[in-house]
Amino acid sequence: MEARVYSVVVLVFAEKGWAGFTLDEVARRSGVGKASVYLRWRDKRELLLAAMRDRLEPFQGWTHTGDLREDLKAMARYVFGMYWGWAGLAIMRLWLDARTYPDLFADLRDFYLFGSVRTVEAMIAAAVDRGELPEGTAPALVLGTMFGVATVQVSVAPPGQGEDLTARTEEYVDRLVDMVLTGLRGGHQPR
Amino acid sequence: MEARVYSVVVLVFAEKGWAGFTLDEVARRSGVGKASVYLRWRDKRELLLAAMRDRLEPFQGWTHTGDLREDLKAMARYVFGMYWGWAGLAIMRLWLDARTYPDLFADLRDFYLFGSVRTVEAMIAAAVDRGELPEGTAPALVLGTMFGVATVQVSVAPPGQGEDLTARTEEYVDRLVDMVLTGLRGGHQPR
Repeated sequence: MEARVYSVVVLVFAEKGWAGFTLDEVARRSGVGKASVYLRWRDKRELLLAAMRDRLEPFQGWTHTGDLREDLKAMARYVFGMYWGWAGLAIMRLWLDARTYPDLFADLRDFYLFGSVRTVEAMIAAAVDRGELPEGTAPALVLGTMFGVATVQVSVAPPGQGEDLTARTEEYVDRLVDMVLTGLRGGHQPR
Repeated sequence: MEARVYSVVVLVFAEKGWAGFTLDEVARRSGVGKASVYLRWRDKRELLLAAMRDRLEPFQGWTHTGDLREDLKAMARYVFGMYWGWAGLAIMRLWLDARTYPDLFADLRDFYLFGSVRTVEAMIAAAVDRGELPEGTAPALVLGTMFGVATVQVSVAPPGQGEDLTARTEEYVDRLVDMVLTGLRGGHQPR
């Protein structure tokens, strides 16, 4: 029962955000009685937090390939995959709702944000050590570009084009990683 | 009265999205009676559409400086300025709600999307003509990077840091434009 409820919770939140998130809809769509939901979780915030942490992990897809291009491609695939589905929608809802309701969602936002930040910092530091990037490369710029391009691409995709986009993921991945790599390296010559 | 209602409408939508958007809250926060609101606008969708178009224009900040770096800096300033306030929040809510409710919001989304796309296409085409960029440069990548980095930066900014971010806008603008320009040019030598 818990798994079914959690999946519906994240889906409803992805579709509507916090202001439209109701236990009534969760109970109806999961087929679990409202009384059971109220018995098990104290309130809708606690339920949402538990469901998000259960269903969605921060980005940890760093593959340690020893090659920055391959690491970035793995990251780009993860990001595009996530943002073309309900998971990315739920995360974007969370960013926005954490601005409107900081007291409710700052912790959950930080959980996803800092998880991804740590991964990208380690990726960049290793690439600098290998001489693939100049000293002082800003991880925030890498994170912003990779997640940013994916969010925009997805946000503006006409409905129903998800499958087409999924089929062309590798094309998007290559183009994005080429641009980011060239942009980050500037005139830097890899050792 | 119209101006006051429109401002509140966009603010409430920015904070809560469509699922949490109610005429009750608009009436209360604008100090305009509900009866008057219902008399003037047929329903809440019509009111939201009118308010968004009245308060928010698509990106048209292309300054025709004849220099791609300056054009991009103008664009970056516009984007950061917008996303650090309610305007950017409202636009991000719109992207998400247009995925959940395509029938309601596809037109409004296209209005903002294609307005910005046309501006960036013209900017890139002019830069290619001047020899500043290689043939075939994808406007979508420019749009995605500029808006994407700004959205991520803003989405993950801790509450209350808006002022600090605003003070450092030029630093963000320079770093972003440097990366985008280098990335787009690749090995291309400006004529």
